[in-house]
Amino acid sequence: MVIPSLIECKRDGGELPAGTWAAIVRAYAADEIPDYQMSALLMAVVWRGLSTAELTELTAAMLASGDRLRFDDWAVPRVDKHSTGGVGDKTSLLLAPMLACCGAAVPMMSGRGLGHTGGTLDKLESIPGFSTQLSLPAATAQVRTLGCALFGQTPDIAPVDRRLYALRDVTGTVPSVPLIAASIMSKKLAEGLNALVLDVKVGSGAFLPEEAHALELARTMIDLGEASGVRSEALVTAMDRPLGHACGNALEVEESILALRGEGPADLMEVTLALGAEALVAAGLERDRAAARARLQGTITSGAALRKLAEIIGAQGGNPALTDDPALLPQAPHSAVYTARAAGRVVAVHPRPVGHGIIAMGGGRVRVEDQVDPSVGFVITARPGDEVAAGQPLATIYARDTAGLDAGAEALDRAIAIGADAPAPRPLVSHRVTVHGVESLAG
Amino acid sequence: MVIPSLIECKRDGGELPAGTWAAIVRAYAADEIPDYQMSALLMAVVWRGLSTAELTELTAAMLASGDRLRFDDWAVPRVDKHSTGGVGDKTSLLLAPMLACCGAAVPMMSGRGLGHTGGTLDKLESIPGFSTQLSLPAATAQVRTLGCALFGQTPDIAPVDRRLYALRDVTGTVPSVPLIAASIMSKKLAEGLNALVLDVKVGSGAFLPEEAHALELARTMIDLGEASGVRSEALVTAMDRPLGHACGNALEVEESILALRGEGPADLMEVTLALGAEALVAAGLERDRAAARARLQGTITSGAALRKLAEIIGAQGGNPALTDDPALLPQAPHSAVYTARAAGRVVAVHPRPVGHGIIAMGGGRVRVEDQVDPSVGFVITARPGDEVAAGQPLATIYARDTAGLDAGAEALDRAIAIGADAPAPRPLVSHRVTVHGVESLAG
Repeated sequence: MVIPSLIECKRDGGELPAGTWAAIVRAYAADEIPDYQMSALLMAVVWRGLSTAELTELTAAMLASGDRLRFDDWAVPRVDKHSTGGVGDKTSLLLAPMLACCGAAVPMMSGRGLGHTGGTLDKLESIPGFSTQLSLPAATAQVRTLGCALFGQTPDIAPVDRRLYALRDVTGTVPSVPLIAASIMSKKLAEGLNALVLDVKVGSGAFLPEEAHALELARTMIDLGEASGVRSEALVTAMDRPLGHACGNALEVEESILALRGEGPADLMEVTLALGAEALVAAGLERDRAAARARLQGTITSGAALRKLAEIIGAQGGNPALTDDPALLPQAPHSAVYTARAAGRVVAVHPRPVGHGIIAMGGGRVRVEDQVDPSVGFVITARPGDEVAAGQPLATIYARDTAGLDAGAEALDRAIAIGADAPAPRPLVSHRVTVHGVESLAG
Repeated sequence: MVIPSLIECKRDGGELPAGTWAAIVRAYAADEIPDYQMSALLMAVVWRGLSTAELTELTAAMLASGDRLRFDDWAVPRVDKHSTGGVGDKTSLLLAPMLACCGAAVPMMSGRGLGHTGGTLDKLESIPGFSTQLSLPAATAQVRTLGCALFGQTPDIAPVDRRLYALRDVTGTVPSVPLIAASIMSKKLAEGLNALVLDVKVGSGAFLPEEAHALELARTMIDLGEASGVRSEALVTAMDRPLGHACGNALEVEESILALRGEGPADLMEVTLALGAEALVAAGLERDRAAARARLQGTITSGAALRKLAEIIGAQGGNPALTDDPALLPQAPHSAVYTARAAGRVVAVHPRPVGHGIIAMGGGRVRVEDQVDPSVGFVITARPGDEVAAGQPLATIYARDTAGLDAGAEALDRAIAIGADAPAPRPLVSHRVTVHGVESLAG
């Protein structure tokens, strides 16, 4: 295999012959392809894309580079929800216990914060003692006993994806629909799922802000899932403002607990129930979405979902009492109310400055090895379209020191735009994408 | 300087701000940018190109990364001819002594064979004892005393270009007009020239086979030269067949000696005189090309050019008697006549299979560290358009063993096409490109 000529083929818009991507993944795993050739090849892929055959082969090879969860003949349907990444998005923390209460098994392998977005692993690790590092046998066992495990990508899951992701992150080769799809699906297909619901974010805070790209990514991932025998669907949801009020690791866990008590913000609940209903229907656990939503809502009303979350926390080393007393979560020593600089209408709450603000306050990473302060962040109550008076509270900033409060306020200055005319925000859930096509859900 | 965001800027078609390319070159020279980021950036440049401002800055920074030849106030005009690379192209071996005989100083810094093409350094090193590794002071001194030095890029000339070239070679990032132009010109501008004539090859054996690309490369290099105060011109010449008969290092030196005796093939002499005439006029040594051609021809007729070559060979460690007795050059132990497989017209003599054949016979490199056997190669007397009978001799193969003879014959099978209709070959010299524009020279 002559790597330069493969790079040249892709650079010139060609399709690599069958078997080539599998060979590339094997050789890269064996350290036979240096990073400087791989990054040039990745940039050529960003430029020229991948054919369906190339993408399917690449994804399968990344999956095959590692191990996977195995549930053998277990009859309980495994289902997962995966988001392409946003700010304030804590739907995974809600859906994992809710779906488990509805008879699904949820082997939820999550990631860390990336760029301006938050990560489920970081949120979970704000729970003192909570371990996200489960071995595959331990995760499998917990899914069988509790119906759910919340854990991180182990070194034996798609190891080539881990390395490629780290390389893409520093070589400007992240925003490619096929590369994003291959990365996500190589991990999701390792979970031993029957059904998968993808939450593809769209809007300024998404990695692919354009609706056309979001739809393309959704279709691409669904095709990969279905080709591997996993019933796959996607909802395209709004990430032109944060989801819910809380943004920051411990603050989001707290908001999730409140939501499982029935006190969640409306937008968060709407997206959670929409995704959960798709999941239950896709998994064959409900026949229609209305019944599925009612059943999911029931897991909140009955307290079952909150108890399930407590069980999971207890099983993974955390203190289950925290679901009764969220004050057991890390608390930031400083807080300040952020108020409107002027009267007017809230035109936008931009997710990217919010996410970057959390990083600036120490609640996210600039480098992989950075330590995260789980306590910092924002609770932003202002929503696009709100009429506000000068001096009216819009948010609370949680920081570890006064410099953090200043950084947080600066971030909110960039994030919260107040003006005269507020354009209508994106519909929360705008499209359903299935193997049959795209269905518009807006308006 | 955040490299990933610079890569992203270029990837998205942007222009890097003034000063950025200079900073990138400095940081790369200081090992502060890893190769995996540089190769992704280079691929983004292949994709998106460089603005004139970016290219000028990049070239200047690559030049400034090393030293240069200095002739201070010396009144003798320095001139060089540089080719973008071909097969059988030994015009440098002829022009260096011819121009020196006409009153020009020729500090000719050349390169090695690259891909299927030959390199002047490799040809010179087929002369036993000849040293191409001159220090900059030694090269400068020889130019002052003999009017010419033939040497290789020293480690202190454009060191960043050396590293970038090696990286491009293995990452599919060679065929980019701005990157080729920056690489060539960063070295040529280090020669302390007053005038530069570029021989931009076009046709199937050129690195950029398309005429439009060749013209773009010519204009780009001329602009870079003129911007640095070097009078720069280019001729676009045919590389859809080898130039001259001999292809292979020692064989080409022998053909050069014969040519300086007045026995050179017509196509080689035509290209040599055309380039030389441009050089003499550009250097201000002749007022018009006709007079320049006559003067150059005179250096052959008088034997002055051959004596000058002998002087140079002697000064650089070789045996000057070799210009009287080319049999002192390394001789291949095996040779065979290659004959026409069938009667017909020679449709094409493709340069690439010829070049690859020389490599297969041991006369070129697959890896940088490969040793070259200078004696092997071809003397191809068949020219496109020739009417040939079956069994008629078309070429002689020179090899170190019988396996080499077989490899050579296979290469000629691929190179020499015999058919019914021979399309007209490209005009030998098709365009003159100056700062004033492009002038078509073809019929």
